[in-house]
Amino acid sequence: MSASHAPTIGVFDSGFGGLTVLRELLPLVSGGHCVYLGDTARLPYGSKSRETIVRYAISSARFLQKRGAELLVVACNTATALALEELRDALPIPVVGVIDPGAKAAAEACYELNRCNTAEAPSEVLVVATQATVGAQAYTRACAKLGLRATEKACPLLVPLVEEGWIANESGDKVEIANANDAARASVTAQVLRIYLSEALDAAPASRALLLGCTHYPLLRPEIERTLADLGRPLCIIDSARATAQAVARVLQEKSIMRPTSTDAPDATCEFFATDSVEKFERLGSRFLGRPVADVQLVDLGG
Amino acid sequence: MSASHAPTIGVFDSGFGGLTVLRELLPLVSGGHCVYLGDTARLPYGSKSRETIVRYAISSARFLQKRGAELLVVACNTATALALEELRDALPIPVVGVIDPGAKAAAEACYELNRCNTAEAPSEVLVVATQATVGAQAYTRACAKLGLRATEKACPLLVPLVEEGWIANESGDKVEIANANDAARASVTAQVLRIYLSEALDAAPASRALLLGCTHYPLLRPEIERTLADLGRPLCIIDSARATAQAVARVLQEKSIMRPTSTDAPDATCEFFATDSVEKFERLGSRFLGRPVADVQLVDLGG
Repeated sequence: MSASHAPTIGVFDSGFGGLTVLRELLPLVSGGHCVYLGDTARLPYGSKSRETIVRYAISSARFLQKRGAELLVVACNTATALALEELRDALPIPVVGVIDPGAKAAAEACYELNRCNTAEAPSEVLVVATQATVGAQAYTRACAKLGLRATEKACPLLVPLVEEGWIANESGDKVEIANANDAARASVTAQVLRIYLSEALDAAPASRALLLGCTHYPLLRPEIERTLADLGRPLCIIDSARATAQAVARVLQEKSIMRPTSTDAPDATCEFFATDSVEKFERLGSRFLGRPVADVQLVDLGG
Repeated sequence: MSASHAPTIGVFDSGFGGLTVLRELLPLVSGGHCVYLGDTARLPYGSKSRETIVRYAISSARFLQKRGAELLVVACNTATALALEELRDALPIPVVGVIDPGAKAAAEACYELNRCNTAEAPSEVLVVATQATVGAQAYTRACAKLGLRATEKACPLLVPLVEEGWIANESGDKVEIANANDAARASVTAQVLRIYLSEALDAAPASRALLLGCTHYPLLRPEIERTLADLGRPLCIIDSARATAQAVARVLQEKSIMRPTSTDAPDATCEFFATDSVEKFERLGSRFLGRPVADVQLVDLGG
């Protein structure tokens, strides 16, 4: 099997969220093989020091490299914000994080919006993310390099709401509510989104686009779209997960790790590793990947 | 200064929650000195293995003993559930956890309720707690020893809601809402409580008492009382924090570490230590202690 035909791609996150990146990546790497590691025993990274996060990220990345990864996707906003350069220094393979692709996609969207608009307002993007990511201000820096002003808004309750599954089941365009309690749960999440987004729009009224700066948030996308519409502010939504998957496909071709995918290539295959509770990973992970996650293997990377 | 007059008491939690225990303890140990350690760098304990939690708890306890603690309060449900016996083996001072005092207070309350009731229904208590505490089933075991049947209900969203301050400001019997967004936040928490408590009561309809099995929950007590009243089930509420403080005062006197407090003893003094972000500890901690938390000292207990 030649490397230029069937690449092995390592995808790493502190938990399950990075599976939304893998979900977008799989259709772009047909014929390839993806190895996903969720460092669930050591999450959340957000409350740890930079030194600790760098150490954890490098040990996770080395594990994936030993499993054959020819490219590493850091599918974790905190690890990207705090450890991307260190990972690039430590590994001999290309490393793609989630922040620069997200910022670039936001800049492109704002450029398009401005082209259709005669007003010469400065481009501005609203970034919703976790407290840790907002604290690191990595999106603000990445956007500034592209001439884009970013306002970051921490939304700490969204990750627990997604992990608890307090979201409406989307089936195409139709929202399915299984029972009264599920409806009440989905309604709580809708109200939380309304509070966060109305505060964020008050703080940055000129925003044209909303960047989902956390790998958990794509699961809330339909509800976020509804909330923005209700608030009369249907912003263009930029999904870091999708932008990152596209950046990975580009790098794989630029580095000749993968040839352009032919239409008859088989689906990409996956292997999953977690550092804690395989059962929880399989149960939660399926929601993020959008298909069953099975045969997760437990791995010990130390304390 | 004689030990029997001015005891030093160590109070340990993985975070800020244990400050609700300290809050109940201070009025009972006038003239004494309390040293509080929040192991915030290594929280949450709930997602860690038993071995890791035991190791963390023992290193935290040894730190407090070195600071002069003559009694240790494990003001953390997870550490109590998973490491109490190991802490008692490792330390030469009395160790009091939060679970047995909570279970005992629930059994006493149910006994009183049964005395006033001619029906011979078995005593049953509903325990609300975090996923980690429910998973350990320590309350179920502690209650069973006292002839009390416990039904445990995990309420994973309550800790983040309390930590984010999405609660109504209570001022005596009056709820003060500062502005529309604060009202919307408090309403979210009320709806989340209604979902959890109605599900719990459906699962355990014979419950007479509700035990708050997490040190964060006393901050929600007024809202929990309102919700139970709305549901037509005004259960007797048992607060583990209060029961634990009373158990500590009892042990201090039994072991002759403290004499019964005289009415003119000065207020107990406090020292605070945290293993991460002193600023966050001071900001959040004040809510839990019900008075300003200042001069928190950073301490490094290792990874």
